[in-house]
Amino acid sequence: MTPTTAPARGEEADTLAALAVSAATVDGGALSDVELAAWLEERRHTQPQRVRRVPFAELDGWRFERDSGDLRHASGRFFAVHGLRVRSDFGPVAAWDQPIIDQPEIGILGIAVRDFGGIPHLLMQAKSEPGNVNGMQLSPTVQATKSNYSRVHGGSAVAYLDCFRSPEPGAVVADVLQSEQGSWFLGKRNRNMIVRVGPQVEAGEDFAWLTLRQVNMLLQQDNVVNMDARTVLSCLPDWRAEAAGVTGSLHSDTEVRSWITRRRAEHEVSVTPIGLARAEGWCRDPHTVSRVDGRHFSVVAVDVVSGRREVAAWSQPLVEPHGTGIAALFVRQIEGVPHVLLRARAEAGFLSVVELGPTVQCTVENYSHLPRESWPPYLDELLERRDKAVYDVLLSEEGGRFLAAQSHYVIVEAEDETPLESEEFRWVSLRQVDELLRYSHHVNVQARTLIAALRSL
Amino acid sequence: MTPTTAPARGEEADTLAALAVSAATVDGGALSDVELAAWLEERRHTQPQRVRRVPFAELDGWRFERDSGDLRHASGRFFAVHGLRVRSDFGPVAAWDQPIIDQPEIGILGIAVRDFGGIPHLLMQAKSEPGNVNGMQLSPTVQATKSNYSRVHGGSAVAYLDCFRSPEPGAVVADVLQSEQGSWFLGKRNRNMIVRVGPQVEAGEDFAWLTLRQVNMLLQQDNVVNMDARTVLSCLPDWRAEAAGVTGSLHSDTEVRSWITRRRAEHEVSVTPIGLARAEGWCRDPHTVSRVDGRHFSVVAVDVVSGRREVAAWSQPLVEPHGTGIAALFVRQIEGVPHVLLRARAEAGFLSVVELGPTVQCTVENYSHLPRESWPPYLDELLERRDKAVYDVLLSEEGGRFLAAQSHYVIVEAEDETPLESEEFRWVSLRQVDELLRYSHHVNVQARTLIAALRSL
Repeated sequence: MTPTTAPARGEEADTLAALAVSAATVDGGALSDVELAAWLEERRHTQPQRVRRVPFAELDGWRFERDSGDLRHASGRFFAVHGLRVRSDFGPVAAWDQPIIDQPEIGILGIAVRDFGGIPHLLMQAKSEPGNVNGMQLSPTVQATKSNYSRVHGGSAVAYLDCFRSPEPGAVVADVLQSEQGSWFLGKRNRNMIVRVGPQVEAGEDFAWLTLRQVNMLLQQDNVVNMDARTVLSCLPDWRAEAAGVTGSLHSDTEVRSWITRRRAEHEVSVTPIGLARAEGWCRDPHTVSRVDGRHFSVVAVDVVSGRREVAAWSQPLVEPHGTGIAALFVRQIEGVPHVLLRARAEAGFLSVVELGPTVQCTVENYSHLPRESWPPYLDELLERRDKAVYDVLLSEEGGRFLAAQSHYVIVEAEDETPLESEEFRWVSLRQVDELLRYSHHVNVQARTLIAALRSL
Repeated sequence: MTPTTAPARGEEADTLAALAVSAATVDGGALSDVELAAWLEERRHTQPQRVRRVPFAELDGWRFERDSGDLRHASGRFFAVHGLRVRSDFGPVAAWDQPIIDQPEIGILGIAVRDFGGIPHLLMQAKSEPGNVNGMQLSPTVQATKSNYSRVHGGSAVAYLDCFRSPEPGAVVADVLQSEQGSWFLGKRNRNMIVRVGPQVEAGEDFAWLTLRQVNMLLQQDNVVNMDARTVLSCLPDWRAEAAGVTGSLHSDTEVRSWITRRRAEHEVSVTPIGLARAEGWCRDPHTVSRVDGRHFSVVAVDVVSGRREVAAWSQPLVEPHGTGIAALFVRQIEGVPHVLLRARAEAGFLSVVELGPTVQCTVENYSHLPRESWPPYLDELLERRDKAVYDVLLSEEGGRFLAAQSHYVIVEAEDETPLESEEFRWVSLRQVDELLRYSHHVNVQARTLIAALRSL
C-alpha cells in the first residue's frame, strides 16, 4: 500500500465542493422530484416516434457499394459499415472478420451546469433515439455528431452548441476524448464536456435542470439515463474521492500507468479494412447482415418518423446485438480506500489497442452452451453473488446506432480474498480512475457507465 | 494566474530527490568526466561501421510490391514504406501524397538506473546506427524493436531486455508510449521506460554508468546523445519543477487539456493508405524515391557492415531529409514560474491528430524562397534572437530510420510581451509538461528533445 496525498487541485476545489452539495441536496432543486417524474412522463408522451424495420433497399441515400459491399450514405457523411479483418494475440480467438461502424468524426457530448442558489444543476435533455427500447431517454444537453452540428442533415441548429464550442474562460470542468464500443465502432471517440454556464442559459422545451442527486436517482432506474449522458457523467471530477483527503492505492500511479503501457505494448491487434462483402462467416439478405451461426450481432435497417428531431423522418442502418449484455464491476475497500477491479481489454476498434474495462463484460448467451471453464474470468462468481449486488440496473447503449442494445450493469462487493486471475486484472483506486478519466482512451465506455453508477450510490 | 500546489507524489519524492542529487553531483560518479570522454572516444574507434548507398535492387530481402509499389521486407516484419494520401483542414496545404514509414510494432526504449553510493546513475550505450552522421552516439540501455527482441533478425539476444520486460516491483520510474516523427512515421510509437535496477546489473562492453549531470553535459554537445535517449530522458519526472514546491500556471490543467481536446476535435486529418506507386508528385528511380520538385525528403537504400550489432551486415531503406531542420522552444518566466510556448501540431502520422510541438518546427530551406509573411509563426523572431539562445545544439534524429537527419535544437528566452499568434499556441508551465509526459501522445518527439535539453541547463 503506497500512501499518497490527493489534495483537490486549487482550481477545482470550489467545483468539487459545489458538486458534493448538488449530490446531497434534497430540497432546493429547480424541480422537485415529483415535478421531475411528471416532466419525464409528459416528455415521453409528447415525443411520438415510430420505428419500423425495413429492407436495406428502402433506405434513403444508403447503399451497399458495388465492389466492397460496404454500406455507406451517398453523401459520404454520417457513418459507414465496413468489413474488418481482425488478428489478435489477445483473448481466445486469434482471427475473425466482422462488420464495424466507421464514423471518423468527433462529436460533442456536453452537459451544461448552472448554479441555482449556489447549487449546481445539470441541463438534461429528453431525447428520442430510434434504437431505444422505450423511445425517450435522458441525454446530455448536447449530443451531436459533427454532421449534426455542421448541418449535413439539413436539420435545425443544435441547441446550446455554443456553450460548448465557445465556453467562457475558466468555465470548462471537463473536456476529454473518450472511446465508445470497441467491438462495434472503429476508432470512434467523442468529446465529453462539462461546462459551467451563466443565468442567461435557460431550459428550453425537452430540457430540464436537475441536481446531481436527481441524476443519480434516475441512474437507479432501468433505461432512463442514456449512454451518452452516462459517459459524460463519468468525466465529472469525483467529488467523493477528493472529499476523502489523504488516500492511498494498492498500486502507485506509476505502476498503474505502466501496467496499461505494458498491455498495449506486448500485444498486437491488427485490423485491416476489407469489404463487407469479403467478411468471412457473414452473409447478407434483404433485411440483415448477420453471422451464419446467428451469434454476436446483425446489421439491420429502420425507417423512423419522429416528432422531435432535427429531421422529422429518415431511415438508417443500426447494429442489433443478439442477447443482453452484462457489465459488472467488483468493488472492495483496501485499507479503507475504495478500489475497483478493472480488466485490460483489447477491442478491435480501440485506437490504442487496450483500455480498462469492467471486471466482467460479455453476453452470457454466448457462453451458456460452453463448460464453465471456458467462461470469462469472474463470470461464475458474479452470477453466484449477483443477488447481493449493490447496483443492478438494465441500461441501453447509444440508440442512434444500436437497436435495443441493453446490458445489465452490476456492481458487486468482492470478497477480501478475491484472487487476481491474471495479468489482465488490477485493483485500481477510485482516485486513480478519476485521474485516468482526465486523459483519453484509458477507461472504456462500459466501465465509465459503471463508474458513474458507483458514484451515484 | 491560477495558483496550484504540486507536492511530489509520495511514491516519487525519493526518486526526485535522488535525481536532483545525480544532476548536481560533480564528483563521485562511476566515471570521472575525463574517463567518460576517453570511453566515448575509445568506443567510437572500436565500432567501425561502413555505410554505402546502394540501388534498391541490391537490398537484401526488400522489394517494391508489384501492384502497390510499396517497399516491404520479404518477411513482412521490420517496417514498410507506404504511400499515404493526406487530407487536412489544418495548416496551409489541404492535400498531399507522401511516402511514410509503417512500423506497427511497439519497441522498447529503456534506461536502467542504478545507485552508486546513493547517487542514481543511468546506463547508457555507445551504439552505431547507419544513419548517424558520426556513426556512434549515446543511446538508451535498450533500444529494441519488437523484431529485435523477438529475434526476427536472427541476431544475438538484446542485452538488459529483462530489466524492462520483468522489472522488480516498484522499480518502474516511467513507462509510457510516445509518438515519433508524425511526418515520417504512420502511427509509430515506442515504449519509453526508466527502471531502477540493483547492484547485480553491471555495465557490459559498449555500456557505461553516467550521472544525470554527465548526461546533461553531453546534451550540450553536437550529435552525441541520440534521439531515443533524448525521448526517454524527457520522460523522467522533472526533478526541478517538483523541487520548486508550490507553483502556478498561466492556464489551469483543465484548460490545457481542453485546448488539446478542442484542437483534436475541431480539425480533421484523414489519411488513406495508397500504393507508393500512386503517390502523386513522387517518382522512383533506381536509387531514390523523391519528389519531382526535390523538396522534403527521399527514400534511399544503404548497405551496412558493422562490428557491433546483432547482425554484422545488412541492407535497408532509410529516409533522407533534404535540409537541416530547426526546432525551437520559447521559454519565459510567468510570475516566477517557467513556461514554454507550445504549438498544437497536426502531423499526418499522429494516432490522435494533434500533439504539442515546439514553438517553431520546420526546415528553413523550405521557406527561404518565400516572403516572410508566409513563414511559420515566430520563425522570423527566432532567427533574429538566435544569437541570444540559451541552448543551440545540432542533434540527430533516429539513425536506424533516417539518413543524416539533423536539426538545430534551440531554446530562446522570449520577450515578456511576446503575443500569442493564434489558437494553435499556448504558454504551458513545465510542471504541466511533466504531467502531460506521463500520458501518451501529448508532446511530440521534437518537443520532448527540447524539454530534455531545457532540464539539462
